[in-house]
Amino acid sequence: MTNTDIQQVTIDGETRLLAIIGDPIGQVKSPRTLNPRFAAAGMDTVLLPVHVKPELFDITVQGLMAVGNLDGIIVTVPYKARILPLIDEVLPMAAQVGAANALRRQADGRWCGDMFDGRGLVRGLRNAKINPAVRRVMLIGAGGAGSAVAVALADAGVSVLTIFDVDSNKADALARRVAVAFPACSVRTGPVDIPGHDTLINATPIGMAPGDGPPAPLDGLTSEVLVIDVIIKPDTTPFLDAARATGCRTFNGRLMLDGQAEELAAFFGAGERR
Amino acid sequence: MTNTDIQQVTIDGETRLLAIIGDPIGQVKSPRTLNPRFAAAGMDTVLLPVHVKPELFDITVQGLMAVGNLDGIIVTVPYKARILPLIDEVLPMAAQVGAANALRRQADGRWCGDMFDGRGLVRGLRNAKINPAVRRVMLIGAGGAGSAVAVALADAGVSVLTIFDVDSNKADALARRVAVAFPACSVRTGPVDIPGHDTLINATPIGMAPGDGPPAPLDGLTSEVLVIDVIIKPDTTPFLDAARATGCRTFNGRLMLDGQAEELAAFFGAGERR
Repeated sequence: MTNTDIQQVTIDGETRLLAIIGDPIGQVKSPRTLNPRFAAAGMDTVLLPVHVKPELFDITVQGLMAVGNLDGIIVTVPYKARILPLIDEVLPMAAQVGAANALRRQADGRWCGDMFDGRGLVRGLRNAKINPAVRRVMLIGAGGAGSAVAVALADAGVSVLTIFDVDSNKADALARRVAVAFPACSVRTGPVDIPGHDTLINATPIGMAPGDGPPAPLDGLTSEVLVIDVIIKPDTTPFLDAARATGCRTFNGRLMLDGQAEELAAFFGAGERR
Repeated sequence: MTNTDIQQVTIDGETRLLAIIGDPIGQVKSPRTLNPRFAAAGMDTVLLPVHVKPELFDITVQGLMAVGNLDGIIVTVPYKARILPLIDEVLPMAAQVGAANALRRQADGRWCGDMFDGRGLVRGLRNAKINPAVRRVMLIGAGGAGSAVAVALADAGVSVLTIFDVDSNKADALARRVAVAFPACSVRTGPVDIPGHDTLINATPIGMAPGDGPPAPLDGLTSEVLVIDVIIKPDTTPFLDAARATGCRTFNGRLMLDGQAEELAAFFGAGERR
């Protein structure tokens, strides 16, 4: 497969469709990332960017779901929570996170929805030969990304999960949802307190904007701690810079993004679920 | 452009969408025909097959029309008449035919619809250096294809148009619509009576099925008559065979189909309207 082929797909009357919906839509990279995976798997399927306007959300999505040769929908900002009422069967992780980012039509015609944002991070860790089970995680951020990461990490068997958010109500609510779904995980909320943890994750957008510092003071950080940022752009952040200066192993948002591409491809039939 | 490139398109977040809707949809060739034209015109636009189920027609088409980055819809069987009530502005030829086969979103957000089936034949004739103006046409068939052909030929200035259909009510109704819209065209209905005409067109499906004969007796056919069949498959028909045996110049349905591809490409911004 040449570099050019990676961006190209073939469309004819038999082609099956997948849509990625969002507002705006121009920034999405999934068609370029996933279409070559479908082609490589021998699937005559293309993923298309579909701009859904907020004021037309229901009519547009219901129309897409009625298209006979449309097999699935990937959901991006700002619709991951808003999509839930349109899904016939919300799978457990999507229900626990309170959001879905992928839907597919089942053989019986009903639509099921699942959540892969956090699973992408888990898969990325496993790809890097890091077993998430029994890790002790300090998570910064309980918003959309933080919720998905928290649930997926608890599902993957982390032993300790401490959640911090500047909005302590959000952190508390997320911790309660995780505690109910995963009784074996010791989950609590509190300030960023690194000692006692072996993994530190930033799931806030702090670090994207010029002039941003780390999302929290990093007192007590030692080189044994694995440090992960979910931010993709820029490549590195003050948070990761500080961790590298301390000698930590670090990953930026690519770890989660690449893992998620594998999860989504598998959900739509190209590749293995894990 | 290599043979492989002709079938390939590039899709990313900025790509604009066009849909061809029908039931069934697997047989449509327009994506393979038109996508290379859009690419050649420098447009980041792809035409997709969209299977619209009859029982979900309104919800599906209204959903498509709400998609922010969907610029147009091509309509095929069985929806060319059913689409009309969903169009904000039905352009004159579509109104005269009573059917539309292409819609696009205007700058003001309203959808206009037009009919290119018959214009495809007119363009095909012009591409073959045949001027449709002042021709004397005997048209067999007043159904969907026949209606589109009749209106487009009248619009192109044929001087005589005689319409035959086994259902004489259909022929009469079509003749009335043409007469009202194009007073300069001498339109009438009657049996297939070739003398007095220089052009003979089959716009019925008779000739597609094995064992079919010509759609009508061809008494009086002479080699000066131009003979056109709208049938694409098979390549030739008993009607065209008889015409060739008489020494006539003949065209099969490719003339109309290729002309229509040019018309549709131009309607969506790739190429010249004529």
